[in-house]
Amino acid sequence: MTIENFVHESNKTTLEQLDAFLRIPSISTSPQHDRDCRKAAQWLADHLDGAGCTATLLGSDTHPVVWAESPHVPGRPTVLVYGHYDVQPPDPLDLWDTPPFEPTVRDGNVYARGATDDKGQVFSIVAAYQAVTRSGSPPVNVKFLIEGQEETGSEVLTDLLHREPQRVAADAVLVSDSSYYAPGWPALYTALRGICYCEITVRTLKSDLHSGLYGGVAPNAHEALVRILGQLKSPNGRIRIPGLYEAVERPSAAERKAWKQLPFNERTYRQREVGAKALTGIAGRTPLERTWALPTFEIHGITGGFTAEGAKTVIPAVASAKVSLRLVPRQRAKTVERQLRKRVKELAPPYAQISLDFVHGADPVQADVTAPPFDCIRRAFREVERREVVSIRSGGSIPIVPLLATGGAPVVLTGVGLPDDRLHAPNEKLSLDQFWKGVRVFGRFFELMGAS
Amino acid sequence: MTIENFVHESNKTTLEQLDAFLRIPSISTSPQHDRDCRKAAQWLADHLDGAGCTATLLGSDTHPVVWAESPHVPGRPTVLVYGHYDVQPPDPLDLWDTPPFEPTVRDGNVYARGATDDKGQVFSIVAAYQAVTRSGSPPVNVKFLIEGQEETGSEVLTDLLHREPQRVAADAVLVSDSSYYAPGWPALYTALRGICYCEITVRTLKSDLHSGLYGGVAPNAHEALVRILGQLKSPNGRIRIPGLYEAVERPSAAERKAWKQLPFNERTYRQREVGAKALTGIAGRTPLERTWALPTFEIHGITGGFTAEGAKTVIPAVASAKVSLRLVPRQRAKTVERQLRKRVKELAPPYAQISLDFVHGADPVQADVTAPPFDCIRRAFREVERREVVSIRSGGSIPIVPLLATGGAPVVLTGVGLPDDRLHAPNEKLSLDQFWKGVRVFGRFFELMGAS
Repeated sequence: MTIENFVHESNKTTLEQLDAFLRIPSISTSPQHDRDCRKAAQWLADHLDGAGCTATLLGSDTHPVVWAESPHVPGRPTVLVYGHYDVQPPDPLDLWDTPPFEPTVRDGNVYARGATDDKGQVFSIVAAYQAVTRSGSPPVNVKFLIEGQEETGSEVLTDLLHREPQRVAADAVLVSDSSYYAPGWPALYTALRGICYCEITVRTLKSDLHSGLYGGVAPNAHEALVRILGQLKSPNGRIRIPGLYEAVERPSAAERKAWKQLPFNERTYRQREVGAKALTGIAGRTPLERTWALPTFEIHGITGGFTAEGAKTVIPAVASAKVSLRLVPRQRAKTVERQLRKRVKELAPPYAQISLDFVHGADPVQADVTAPPFDCIRRAFREVERREVVSIRSGGSIPIVPLLATGGAPVVLTGVGLPDDRLHAPNEKLSLDQFWKGVRVFGRFFELMGAS
Repeated sequence: MTIENFVHESNKTTLEQLDAFLRIPSISTSPQHDRDCRKAAQWLADHLDGAGCTATLLGSDTHPVVWAESPHVPGRPTVLVYGHYDVQPPDPLDLWDTPPFEPTVRDGNVYARGATDDKGQVFSIVAAYQAVTRSGSPPVNVKFLIEGQEETGSEVLTDLLHREPQRVAADAVLVSDSSYYAPGWPALYTALRGICYCEITVRTLKSDLHSGLYGGVAPNAHEALVRILGQLKSPNGRIRIPGLYEAVERPSAAERKAWKQLPFNERTYRQREVGAKALTGIAGRTPLERTWALPTFEIHGITGGFTAEGAKTVIPAVASAKVSLRLVPRQRAKTVERQLRKRVKELAPPYAQISLDFVHGADPVQADVTAPPFDCIRRAFREVERREVVSIRSGGSIPIVPLLATGGAPVVLTGVGLPDDRLHAPNEKLSLDQFWKGVRVFGRFFELMGAS
């Protein structure tokens, strides 16, 4: 019962360490936080050193990959732990009940940007490692590979793994960057959506003009942009980009049947979780199928013209939209980028000059969950939760996963978050109960992998 | 030749005073510049006091109306001078060659926000007043009514004139807030467009959501907004708001014929002035008719979601657009607001919660230019420019003009700006040559009105 002893004895210290880790605003999407990303990496490396590993920072001064190895135990299998210490921007700041980088515990949850995505989950694996090594050598060889650019396309880690592919040589890869299906329902992920994130820019004039003098003849960049964007998706949710659905395969009847067994109340989901008057999307498909197994197109924000306080009567010369598509197995980010670019140019009025920047992308992932490490994680969850793990998909993307699989190790995609953790949104949180479940489950996973 | 002497002798002093006036960032659209607006009003009042008038500030602490009267000369007619000391915001700041509130003279132009709209033009009338009064009592009674909210709807002045309508009792109202038709072509304006400026806000979710987890079911506020905006105008420029064109009358055949006599090169206009690959708007109508005699609909800017640097994968809960319509004679701002509101609600998807805020409005103006003061301004321009004034319209709006006419005085709408002055845009300027022409023309106008 070494793990339970750790949970009991190190509770306060561990939560203080988690607080310190969450306190660092390691926002990778914003260059002004480069130093904070470095600081978070260094903090984690120091902590892993203190836990008996040998840690180094690799590949970048600003967003290094944290690499740490446990003391080698010959003859034991190796588990590679992947996670990320970078976080999404916290804005809109005014919607946070407590500041995003001042972790606050309320009702058994810790509220902070990164609490669930992914610093809190990474730290539960680190604590699990500490738990199983407190009274001796590790039951399994563990390598930590914790990056700082998950939210921006994993460039540094991608370069590193292209140069040094042997780093992913392992018997299993463990990724905890997701959530339970529902409270009490641990999940294994059989597929992740990919992403193709682009910025579309429209220019119609040399410079902004006065709408009184030129309104009626001067082409308005926002007008051109909204006309293009408004035609990229039909009101029924179908994306209007030729060729986009060619690679899309419907999940098997068996998979869809299994999903129907999952507890799901559409009304509660819509009202409590989504918070909308109606759900959108393609008719005849369940919400789970729409979010897990169909591509989507989203507009994230539009810039240009006059957006400050007050009223300015300007005809904007330039307008830009940040947009992304989520992709499902067999789609490819680069192919979708080409399809989007072609469609946007077709829809553009002749007076508009269009550019499309590919910001970042990730191919989707599909996993075969029959290998031995999956048995270990299933057993670990069964012991801790007294419930069978369910096999589901995720609508989110973890861009690096395809590369993690190149060494041939099965990639175990799981998580100890909960569906209402509000990742990427204000008031992100992690249940502390879930955090400690993570320590127990991942600790048992290490032990079971060592014995396998 | 008192005016010429003034121009010759006071040249340097007058331009230094103009510089001081333009230097005050009296941006009325932004509350953080309230003090600057007050400062500009006080500066102008002090200056008018120094020029022999009795000046006071009326109606508001932050955006007062400057009211100044010349020493009363019994038996002489009265000219009411209307103008405004407030200016548009200067953004985007990075497109200015020199800072907007550090007036800079280059190639005979002064570059500054407000140079032509309207501080520079107001100051040319003030200088004209100084020119004709330097050697004695004024040839005509002059009242200055210079407001600080022309760019935001003239609330303070509107209230003042509703309380004290006698302030507009005069024999003529002089407004110089426009430009020549072309260099060397002075203009009298027979009509102004009105405006209806609104902000449309769409809410689809309680709060922003992660596009990975909820993309496919969660309604995106930007998607709803662009779909609405994209349908408010057809690609051929016709605004799709039922009833909008009912009050619109085509200009008379005679007026359109007169416009065809004006020098106009569509290619030069498009390339040099508009700076676009093509002109937009309703087919079969000339660019002058489109900008002077047809309503238009413009999107000025869109907020909501994620617009900072980097890439955030958020489904926006709220999106807002600042939009405005320019209106032509017989349309009414309040009617158009109702029509727009109705149409936006019709176009909104059922899951979207819509609100429309009326930000400000102005009814269009149509003037009969046969009264005696028009003869005076025509003669003044003829003497200075050696060319007949042309009667044209303006696509812009001066919200207060209908109220200025309530005393029965003819409203002379003219201007000494040039069409390329870039008002409301970066690098706004005023030709100093035009400024001095204004001093001469308005000086002669005062003299001729006094003798009429």
